[in-house]
Amino acid sequence: MLKNKYLIPLLFMALTTTSTLNASDTLPGASHEISYPEGWQNWSTIAVSHRTDNKTLRVILGNKIAVEAARSGQTNPWPNGSILGKVVWKDSTLPNWTAATVPKELVHTEFMFKDTEKYTETSGWGWARWLGVNQKPFNQGSQVCVSCHTPVKSRDWVYTEAAEFPRL
Amino acid sequence: MLKNKYLIPLLFMALTTTSTLNASDTLPGASHEISYPEGWQNWSTIAVSHRTDNKTLRVILGNKIAVEAARSGQTNPWPNGSILGKVVWKDSTLPNWTAATVPKELVHTEFMFKDTEKYTETSGWGWARWLGVNQKPFNQGSQVCVSCHTPVKSRDWVYTEAAEFPRL
Repeated sequence: MLKNKYLIPLLFMALTTTSTLNASDTLPGASHEISYPEGWQNWSTIAVSHRTDNKTLRVILGNKIAVEAARSGQTNPWPNGSILGKVVWKDSTLPNWTAATVPKELVHTEFMFKDTEKYTETSGWGWARWLGVNQKPFNQGSQVCVSCHTPVKSRDWVYTEAAEFPRL
Repeated sequence: MLKNKYLIPLLFMALTTTSTLNASDTLPGASHEISYPEGWQNWSTIAVSHRTDNKTLRVILGNKIAVEAARSGQTNPWPNGSILGKVVWKDSTLPNWTAATVPKELVHTEFMFKDTEKYTETSGWGWARWLGVNQKPFNQGSQVCVSCHTPVKSRDWVYTEAAEFPRL
């Protein structure tokens, strides 16, 4: 049992800790020492894809630097500061239009952070992944990511081709 | 031949007209009397889909009202002011990963504008479409759109189910 004289200060600490919580405290932990990219849910679209081998649908998003690079075709190399996000869902069929394949459960989100000075060991990119709808950090090593992306080394390690957007 | 005395004022008019052009003057014309939704290229994602019947990939975007409704599951009915955008590309295969279906040519963009007071004749939505990368306005009548959406009348005329996004 704690003595009474400790209870007031402990209560005070608990309350002040709670009241100073900010958004970053509620975000998922780091993946490969990379912080969770807050606000990606509102980023703009770079492309979409449907992988028939593992039955997943994806949208590829980007932060402002990446989207500007994608829309102007400046993607080999992508500029430093670019962040690419890939949101991956299991595919399913739309009940009202069975020829339409649509997203079901969220599998994971994956991000590539371009910084040629920081990520010299991993081809100029930081690689991160968060699993499932609760976004559990993936920490099994960036080499898993780099290995899979080696076939597109000559495309600055990026599979995605930016989708065509209207010339306005 | 114009007389010289007219040339100076005409030149002045031409110059001032050009210099007062603003962004909306360079946008595509109206579709079904609906103005082009400027800036949709940066809207956030609601879902994606792959239609295997006509071999097209799609991203479904929304303005702020629509995205907030989608993320909070308030979509039957969608709130007034919602705009849903569907960007449709012909599908193709990624050279470096042939099991990945990816976007090729832009087919068209389609938009639904929710306004139950304005669009009483067309089920509470305004329907618009712009064709190809040059976004030529489609003006063959909203009935084309409404007919195709009739099977989802009970879903407020919308096929799209909002994709799962992380609960953070």
